[in-house]
Order: sequence, then structure tokens, then C-alpha cells
Amino acid sequence: MAESQSDVVAGATPPDLTRLFSPRGIAIVGASEDPRRIGGQPVKGLTQYGYQGSVYPVNPGHATIQGLKAYSDIRDVPQPCDVALIALPADKVPDVIAQCGEAAIPFAIVLSAGFAELGRQDLQDKLADVIRVSGVRVVGPNCTGLLNLKDNVYSGFGAGFRNPNLKRGPVAMVTQSGGFGYSVVAFAESEGVGFSHMLATGNEVDLTSMDMVEHLLATDDVEIIVCYMEGIRDGRRLRRVGARALACGKPIVVWKVGNTARGRKAAVSHTANLTSDYALYKAAFHEGGFIEISDTYDLVDVVRALQQHRLPRGNRVGILTTSGGAGVVLTDLCEEQGLSLAELTEETARTLKELGGSFAAVSNPVDLSARLAGDPVAFNDATRLLLDDPNVDIAIVRSFAGTASDVWARGLSELLDQHTKPVLITQSGLASQSAEAQKILENKGVPCFPTPGRVVRGAAALASYAGKLARRRIGKAVARDPHVNLELPAGTQVLSERNSKKILASYGIPVVREQVLLESAINALSALPFAFPVVVKIDSEDIPHKTEAGGVRTGLRTLAAVKKAARDVLKSARRYDSKARINGVVVQETAQGLELIVGGVNDVAFGPYVMVGLGGIHSEIMKDTSLRYAPFDGHTALEMLNELKAHPLFTGYRGGPVYELASLAAVVARVSQLMIQHADRVAELDINPLFVRPDGSVMAADCLISLK
Amino acid sequence: MAESQSDVVAGATPPDLTRLFSPRGIAIVGASEDPRRIGGQPVKGLTQYGYQGSVYPVNPGHATIQGLKAYSDIRDVPQPCDVALIALPADKVPDVIAQCGEAAIPFAIVLSAGFAELGRQDLQDKLADVIRVSGVRVVGPNCTGLLNLKDNVYSGFGAGFRNPNLKRGPVAMVTQSGGFGYSVVAFAESEGVGFSHMLATGNEVDLTSMDMVEHLLATDDVEIIVCYMEGIRDGRRLRRVGARALACGKPIVVWKVGNTARGRKAAVSHTANLTSDYALYKAAFHEGGFIEISDTYDLVDVVRALQQHRLPRGNRVGILTTSGGAGVVLTDLCEEQGLSLAELTEETARTLKELGGSFAAVSNPVDLSARLAGDPVAFNDATRLLLDDPNVDIAIVRSFAGTASDVWARGLSELLDQHTKPVLITQSGLASQSAEAQKILENKGVPCFPTPGRVVRGAAALASYAGKLARRRIGKAVARDPHVNLELPAGTQVLSERNSKKILASYGIPVVREQVLLESAINALSALPFAFPVVVKIDSEDIPHKTEAGGVRTGLRTLAAVKKAARDVLKSARRYDSKARINGVVVQETAQGLELIVGGVNDVAFGPYVMVGLGGIHSEIMKDTSLRYAPFDGHTALEMLNELKAHPLFTGYRGGPVYELASLAAVVARVSQLMIQHADRVAELDINPLFVRPDGSVMAADCLISLK
Repeated sequence: MAESQSDVVAGATPPDLTRLFSPRGIAIVGASEDPRRIGGQPVKGLTQYGYQGSVYPVNPGHATIQGLKAYSDIRDVPQPCDVALIALPADKVPDVIAQCGEAAIPFAIVLSAGFAELGRQDLQDKLADVIRVSGVRVVGPNCTGLLNLKDNVYSGFGAGFRNPNLKRGPVAMVTQSGGFGYSVVAFAESEGVGFSHMLATGNEVDLTSMDMVEHLLATDDVEIIVCYMEGIRDGRRLRRVGARALACGKPIVVWKVGNTARGRKAAVSHTANLTSDYALYKAAFHEGGFIEISDTYDLVDVVRALQQHRLPRGNRVGILTTSGGAGVVLTDLCEEQGLSLAELTEETARTLKELGGSFAAVSNPVDLSARLAGDPVAFNDATRLLLDDPNVDIAIVRSFAGTASDVWARGLSELLDQHTKPVLITQSGLASQSAEAQKILENKGVPCFPTPGRVVRGAAALASYAGKLARRRIGKAVARDPHVNLELPAGTQVLSERNSKKILASYGIPVVREQVLLESAINALSALPFAFPVVVKIDSEDIPHKTEAGGVRTGLRTLAAVKKAARDVLKSARRYDSKARINGVVVQETAQGLELIVGGVNDVAFGPYVMVGLGGIHSEIMKDTSLRYAPFDGHTALEMLNELKAHPLFTGYRGGPVYELASLAAVVARVSQLMIQHADRVAELDINPLFVRPDGSVMAADCLISLK
Repeated sequence: MAESQSDVVAGATPPDLTRLFSPRGIAIVGASEDPRRIGGQPVKGLTQYGYQGSVYPVNPGHATIQGLKAYSDIRDVPQPCDVALIALPADKVPDVIAQCGEAAIPFAIVLSAGFAELGRQDLQDKLADVIRVSGVRVVGPNCTGLLNLKDNVYSGFGAGFRNPNLKRGPVAMVTQSGGFGYSVVAFAESEGVGFSHMLATGNEVDLTSMDMVEHLLATDDVEIIVCYMEGIRDGRRLRRVGARALACGKPIVVWKVGNTARGRKAAVSHTANLTSDYALYKAAFHEGGFIEISDTYDLVDVVRALQQHRLPRGNRVGILTTSGGAGVVLTDLCEEQGLSLAELTEETARTLKELGGSFAAVSNPVDLSARLAGDPVAFNDATRLLLDDPNVDIAIVRSFAGTASDVWARGLSELLDQHTKPVLITQSGLASQSAEAQKILENKGVPCFPTPGRVVRGAAALASYAGKLARRRIGKAVARDPHVNLELPAGTQVLSERNSKKILASYGIPVVREQVLLESAINALSALPFAFPVVVKIDSEDIPHKTEAGGVRTGLRTLAAVKKAARDVLKSARRYDSKARINGVVVQETAQGLELIVGGVNDVAFGPYVMVGLGGIHSEIMKDTSLRYAPFDGHTALEMLNELKAHPLFTGYRGGPVYELASLAAVVARVSQLMIQHADRVAELDINPLFVRPDGSVMAADCLISLK
């Protein structure tokens, strides 16, 4: 849950990038006379497209460049100069960064390629060293630069930087691939999206896309941030940025790529980044203010829906069409995308019937039929009825196709002045055939989508994002359980099952009862403190995978069987690993119930998380698991259990038992507390299996904890 | 498999619709002077947009209509008149159809609404009766009509029929929703798709969309059929049409809606159709020449990819970009859509390296880097290398963005004269910025897609459709096993487990051994012909669900336990249903192994099919099942088993056994033979559970067959 993020992933104050984005002066190192060259484009862009600061070309041997006085050394450039834009061969870059440090230039943007992305990790490491020493904060290398349309800062090269007419708007684009990023911007612009910023972060040797996003979250006039992401080294930072986005109500529309095995390989060779597991990104996107997309149209649709500045209170859609077919299509798509169809009140249905007459279908989807298709007033009356209905959160209206479409559009605009619910339009014909109506609606911020799939995508994004904001408002911080002191042994090691279970027990997690049985005491065993059948397991820190070592016997129903099993597992274990330190065996009661796996991992990049799933094939083959970052409360744990596809097993599947899940949820939440409270030492934790019984009682039958 | 369809779903010869599509004369009953009215639009369309046949307005009390001689009775219209277009109030339609019959007019298109779709099933039934008696073949009612752009036949009303400039092309649209269908056509046309026909079938009281599709499959110049489908009453017909489409190599691009519970409800209220289960449609689409889509863009992308007239030999994609980011995105999308990335040969990589220099990434996706982005010749050389590579089946090329894009496009066109592999372009910038290149490529039939998602969608459709054609070519008819005579009792009934298993046994399917034990023989039982543990079950035709009736005891390990269990289940069964005829009990050996469910259903609409899945939760909750129409062979059965998500359980999951699956596949195929050979009597069949053991041996532990 979002409410738990802030304290967990708290990090350093982000760098102040004001002067990077709005510099008073910019030096271009490697400036060129030719405005088509990489070193020449920014000279042209910064002098001809309205930038108000100073521009200082640097290139020894030139008195002037493109009409400006040129300097032979970055250190000669007049102050204030806030940014050095570097377009030099890669091997010359480190020296120039050092010179920027000497000249107290706080920022540099390195356009040059030829670093880690081409196998020159050595040169990139050298650059990193120089950056650290110099104190200069660097964007790149291997990037296309930074475009700030608010201040006409054209600090880069490529098609985006050569276009002074890019449509202005409240959307900022941060991309880890400059070339691809601009093609996305160009496409989105052609669909009507306006931009405030576009910037590419390249190899991210110093400043990262997360630094950029965090700055933009605090930038006035930026309403939406679009982020093309190949990989993030600091997952905690991603989560922190997600929490901040949610707090300030600015959505981050994120396009995460490199998610398949093949994709990952390609991402590595391109950005020289380590790409973490997609599931961890998904979990971070889920908890934070992100909306995930996977194609350029997605981006356009989500942004246009958000720009209406109306968020729904829920996910119940009212659909208004004049074609039954469109209603069926939209209904299918809504269900697929997690939206539900509103049940209209009786009053709405009755009034719609009066309006539409015998040809209309007045249940949702509402089909006014072709008879009303020519009456813009009736059309808007029906829309009003949908918006008035308390069960409708979002209206999807098929556009009015008659000749009076401008009358319809004006009426709809007026209607929206009296309502706060979002209305999304799906085109019944071509937008070009109702240009006037289109314009009226656009001015009102009403998004029109050309296909049913796209209008539903927009509505689904609104509902999901609004749900996040609402949950955040009603949520409260996860109560921290009192810190439990654990006597953890020093050093990296895997704890024995017995010691792992002691830790669970000290967190109030029920574990199977057991009795330690030393080898010397086997013959004398005369009673057990719990009932048969029982389990015998080898007890050794050196044998974490006991089954493989032949160290487990189950279903033992007599003392004689227990004694034989004890001797057998000792023999098997010694044969398996003659050097293993063996404490003896453990006799355990047999746990019963439905089998689950609960695991915690302290991920290097993202921090501690907890996963839950049903045992065996469910988790491992069917991938039916749920994952959240720690810590979280029982409410979230219950949400995780409800997310499992196998969830019907808890609720009386085939006449089976109904499980009381509160205790199970509490255990999962306790594991998350354990993972966060001991994040400094606990690397991984597996409770496998954990049994739950219909009465709600829970019992951990095995556990493995590894320390770092 | 497609090869098995033809003989299974063979039906009557489809009606000859030549004169419906290309009539020599058309009467318009209810013709109007006003060209905006439903009865006026076709008079205008048929007289002003190039139709060469005769047009006969019918409306008593008018001497002329829109300048044409008008008739007061359809029976007075001169011959030849092949089609009567009817635009009258609903209740007048049946009489006019009868009059058409008297006048020997073979076809009528009923535009009028007011039948089953508005609750007047009585009127629709009356219409059906008149149709049967008259011999007239009828399209509609409640439809927008038929548009044949080859012969300029504008037999309908609505926006599509008022537009004489609709782009001509080889695509025919058949839709069950006229209004929605035209909006799709208009959108697709605006994206460059050209049409030959557009027709709506409305309530389908007589002629169906399948009749239309089958006619179009046999129509010259129609290359692709697009079908918007809400529901089909005759599933076998759908399958037959799918087989025919595959045989003649014309893909049917199908948009099936009304698939969710909510969607189904809406579909019923709209088309007054019974919508069968979506899974049955999916299986029909899978076996036949269909390509399924779910949005308007899908349609455009699939059609444009197909119109290149190049089909790949496999699904291995070679990607060429000048942006690493685009390569990563395309790679992700290919994997998601079931395409694989080609492993380039060493020679291709070496030659690419020579071409691209140190900045290029020469493994797939190939990134020529921004350095080669300005060199159209090098760009095409690289494309040639991809096409020459024997491991590449399809090339996806990011468009050349430099100023010489027309040079690139011309070079690529020439290149394609020497290659047969499909090439799909993904736009790097806006199409409008390279209009000349765009035009050159379009003339060559090379499809250009604006986003990565859409180009990959197009490639995936090509690969999947080409795969179907290839399988069809290499496939052979399913060998029919010799017909097995079953002594089935007469009448609709559910057979007892024992009798059901006898039927399995007569089909060579192994069943658990068992011994019948009459109540009178319980006390005397002294030995069993198989080992303990055993199962005792009640034996009664009247108790199909034995567990519910307390009629099953498992895990019995002694004769005493068997006797007690026998008495217990008899008592329980009598308490459960005092009227049930009880034969006694059955003692069975205990089957072991991995538990599966194999079921067969003789669907009323689609015919007999067989489903297989793992037992319990896998099939019922996780919906992890595979379905094919009967009959099929062991090869297809193996394909079904491999499709299961739980398939890793067969192949040594967690050190578990590896299962020999040949016998299991044979059993599944035998079930399909049983279902088809006895389709006249067997309604349903459940083998649940069916056990398979690692050595491949298979045993049915329970079976239920119901007869019709």
C-alpha cells in the first residue's frame, strides 16, 4: 500500500536541478559552425528559438561560431554559466568535466557516445571518477540532451531539438532512449498532446531519469510525466518517486521495456544497465502514482483522458450509443479492462424510456437506437440522465453522428459545467467529418477516441489512477509492530530450520511443535508431547535442503517407526555430506490444511518484499502469486490473498471448507514486519509450507532464513 | 486440426447468392421521394452512383419517385427483378414477401426494424413462415442492407450507402451490426483499407452472415473477408466456412463480441440470438482460416499486413533499427505476441559489423545506430542481409528518417523484387514527414505502421495465419478408427459408472478393474481379484453423483473394511434417494498417478468436442484446459497436452517423474472418435479422474456418459 512507502524508502534529498533545466548561460563544448552537426545544432537551437540566457560556443581555433564569440577553453567562459553541453569525442570528455569543475559550472550534459554502451566501461568509470572529484552533476553520456519548452532551452541534438514548433502543453517526457523517445513525442504530438519538457538520460553515469522525474514533479505547469524506462539501478528510488507522485497528484505514465528474457538481453547491451525482475517494477508501479502503458497509442489515450482533469469516484461505467453493436463491443472491452457496467437506477431507466421510446434499450449499455441518432438535444438529455445516476462513475458516449453534431457538442459542453464526472467520447464516424464538434469538445477538454478499444483504455486508466488516489486518502500509515530483538548469529549464513522457526515464533507466527532428539537419546525415547502421525527431520545448519539429503521421513505412526526413521535420516545425511555438523534429529507434529508458500526477499535494488501463493505447482508453474513491498498490514495481506487466481479454494470450492483468513493475513503481514525490521541482516526467508485450516489457524511447517 | 473438419461438418450446398449480390433489377418497396429517408436513400444510391441494372420504386399513389416510374404493387414490376428492397413498417413485411414469391423475385432485403430485436418474436416467426412458403431468400430484417462496390449496388441505407467515394479494394465486410459495422469500415478506409463489399445481416431470420461469407469466399477479387460477429446459431456452419476459407487461402478476419457475461446479455437483447460459449468460437477460429481481432486498429493492421501478399515460412523475426530503444520495445512485443527473434548466422553478423562499424549492435535486434541513420544505401544493405539470412522469416524495419527517405524507399522496393519474405515497416517519425517514401512503399504493398505495437501485431497475424496454411498442407485426414458398435439403451438417460466404463473399454480405453458385489453377497465375500487398497462405490443408474449421495468409500485395506463400506454406502444411498434403483456395490482397485479430466460434449451448435485438463482446481478454477473438435488424432491430442499451462508436471517438475504421454494422447484421441462415431446418441462424456503414470499407462477411474 502506498501509505507505507515514504518511511521505508526514504532517501537523500534529491539534487536541485533548477539551473540545469533553466540555465542562465550555456557553454557548448565542441560547438560547430555547421548547424546540422551535433555540436552545431544546439548553437542554432539556443540562439534562434527564443532562449533568453547566454550561449557560449567553445572550440579552440575559432573566433566566432554561427555568429557568436567563441572561446578556446571552457574555463574562459563568462559567468553565470550553469550548463556545459559537451559534443566531443568520448575520450576527451573526462578532462572537460574536470575543467567544468574548475570553472564552477554546476551541470554538464554529455551528448558524446562511445562509453559503456560500446563496451568502453573503462572510459565510463573514468568519467564517473572525474565527476565525483569535480562536483559537476552530469546528464549522459550517450544522450540527446534536454529540451525545456517553457524557457526555450534547446540543450541537445536530433529531430526534437530542430523543431521550434513542437506543441506546448503540460506533459514532460523523460526517456532512457533519446531516439525512440523523440519518435514517441512526435507521434503523441500529432495526436494532439502538448509537451513541456523532453529529456534523455543516456547511460546515466550520474544523474538518472529518477532525478529528472523528481524535479519535474516539483515543477509548476508540469501535470503529467511520461517515462520510457529500460532499467533502474535504484529500485527504492523508483518507489520513493512513485510515492511522491501520488502525494502531489501528478501521474507518471510509465513505459517499461526490456521485460522479456530477450528484451532484457537487448536492454543490457544497449544501456549497460542491470535490469531487475519485471515483477519488482510491477509492484513498484502498483504501489506508487504510476500508470503503465505498452504502446504509443496507450500513451496518447491515457494522457488525453487525464487531461480532462476529472477523476471518477469508482469504476462503474455508463455507456450511451445509438448502435447496439457498439454497446456490445464497449461492454466486452470494459469487462476485459477491469471496469464494471453501472446498474442504472429504476428512475434513470424509466426516464430514458420516456425519452427513447419503444426502439431504445434502456439498460446499460443504453442504445438510443438510430431513431434518436438525429436529435442532439435528446442525445444530451440521455447523457445527463447517465451523469445524474448515482451508480455511474464514468460516462462513455458514442459521438453524435448527425449533421447537427456541433449543436450536440455545445450542449454537451454546457452539460459538463454542471457535472464533475468524466465523460469520454468514442467516435461513431471519422473525426474529420465533425471537425467543428471535435474542436468544441477539445476546448472543453473532453477527449474523443477513434476506436472502442482506445476509449475504454482511457477510462480504465482514469479509474485505476483515481482508485490509487482514493486508497491513499483513506489509508493510514502501517502501524509498526514493536521491534523484536532477534539473537542472530554473525556473518552470512543459512539458518537451520529449527533456528529459522524460532525467529518466526518470536514474531508470533505459529510453528509446528517439535522435540529435539539427540542421536544418543534415540533408543531411550518413550513418549512424544504431541499426537501421531509425526515427521522426523535431520537437524543441521549445513543441510538447508533436507529432502534432497534424504533427511525427512513423514507419516510416522509409532514410536518404533520414529526411532527407525531417526537412525535412517542420520545415516542418509552423513552419506549426503560427511562434513556437515549434525545436531541430531527433530521430531515434529504433522501440520494439516491448505498448503501455502510465504516468502520474503530483501532485494538489493528495491528493498524487502513479501510474496504469497499456494503451495507447489500453483506458485511455481502457474505463477499464481502476489507480491508487495514490506511493511504492510493485514488489510493489504488480505488483498494479496484475494488476488490469487486460486482464491476460490479459500471460499468453499466444490463443497470444501470455507477458510477464515484473518490469522493467515496477520501472519503474512508479520513476515513483512520481520523483513523490514531486520532488513540489515535478513536476506531471504521462506515459509514453505505454511498451513491454514478452515478455523483460521495457521502453522508454519518448515522455514528457511538466510542472513547477509 | 483443420484437416479433420471437412467430413465432420459437411452440410448442405450453400445457396447461390449471385443474383442477390449482382441483381439485374431491384425493386424498392416503400420507396420515398425524399432521398434522406430510408426508403429514399437506395433510390438515389442505385440511380446516381453507377449501378447498371434497373430500379423499380414501389409505392401506391405515386406515378414517379425521384424521376423514376413508380409501381403500386411489387407484382407489377417488370422482369428480371432479382431483389426486393423493403422499407415498410414491420407488420406489412410478411405480406410483401408473399407477394415477392408470387412475382418470382428470388431475394428480398428487409431494412425494416420492429421484429425480435424489439420483443416482437411473434412477427419474426410469422415472417419466417412466409419465407418458407414463398421460397424467397431474405436478408434481415432490421439490417442496413448490402453494398457491392464492384457493381455499384447500393442496396441499403445509412452513411455507407450515401458515400459514392468509398475506397475500392479487395476487402469485404460482413457485419451483424450495420451501424457499428459502417463506423469500422469508415475508420479502416481512412487508414487506407479499400473495400469490395459491405453488408449487414440484421436479425438473420433466413440468410446468415455465414451464407454471405461463403458466397464471398467464392467471389473473384475478394481477398480478405472481415466479419463482425455477435453470435452464430449454427456453429458447424462456422467451422465449415473456416475450413473452406483455409482451403481457398482467403483469410476471415473475425471480430467476435458479446464474449463476457455482461456482453452476452447485451448481445441477446440486441440480436435476439443465442450466443454460444466463447471457447467454442475460439476453437472454431483456431481450426479454421480465421484471424481474430478485438479493435478497429487490429483490423487495419492485420488487413494491411495480409495485403502485402507475402507469407512467412515461420515466426522468426529479424529487427532492424537505428535506435536501441526501439529494438528493445519491438523485442518485448514480439515475445508477447508469440513471435521469436531470429538468431542471425555468423556470416550475417560479420557482414553487418563490416557495414555498421563499431557503433552498431549486430545481434538481433540489429541497431545500426544513429551513425548510419543518414545512409539509405547502407540501410538497405543491412535489410538485404536480414532477408538473406536463412534464420529470418519476417523482417521488421524501422523506417529511414533522414532527408533521403525516398531514396531508401525506392531501394527497398527494388530489394523486395529479389525476395519473397514479408517486410513490415515501423515508423520512426511521422508518416507525414516522409510522404514520398510512404507512397513508394504503399505502391509496392509494403505496410507501414505508426507504432511498434501495431507493426508487431501485423507480423504476428501473418505468422499465425501462415502457420495454419502450412499445417493444413502437411496435415492429412484423421484416420477413422473402425466403428465400434455399442449396445446403448434407448432414450435420454445417464448411464451408470459401470456401463459408462464398459463403453470406454470397448473403445480400448483402460479402466480400473472392478468386481460387482450384490447386497446378498456381501457377507460371503472372501477374496478380491486385485490388491488393496480398494474403493467401494454404489452401483445405480439413478445416482450419477455418487459422492454427494455418500456412495463412495476409498482407501479400504481389509476385507472387513470392504464389507462395512459396502453396507454403509447402500444405507447412505437409500437415505439419499429412496426411489433409486440400486444394483448393489462395485469394488474397484485404486488407480494412482497424475489426475486428469477428459470430457466430451456434443454441442448442439458446434458438434462434438473434447476437452482435457489436469484434475480438480486446474481445470475448474485455473481454467487450464485445452479443447478441440472431434475427431482428431494422437498428434493433436499431444498438442493439447502441451498447451496446458500445467504441462511441466509431465516433464519432471521438482525432480518428479517424467511421463510418457503417447498412451494418454491415444486415449484422448479415442474419446474424440467415440464422440464422433456416436454423435447421434452420446450427449456428454466425463472421464474424471483419468490417471496417467510415469510409465505411460493410463487408467480411467470413473466415467459418466449421458445419452440423448
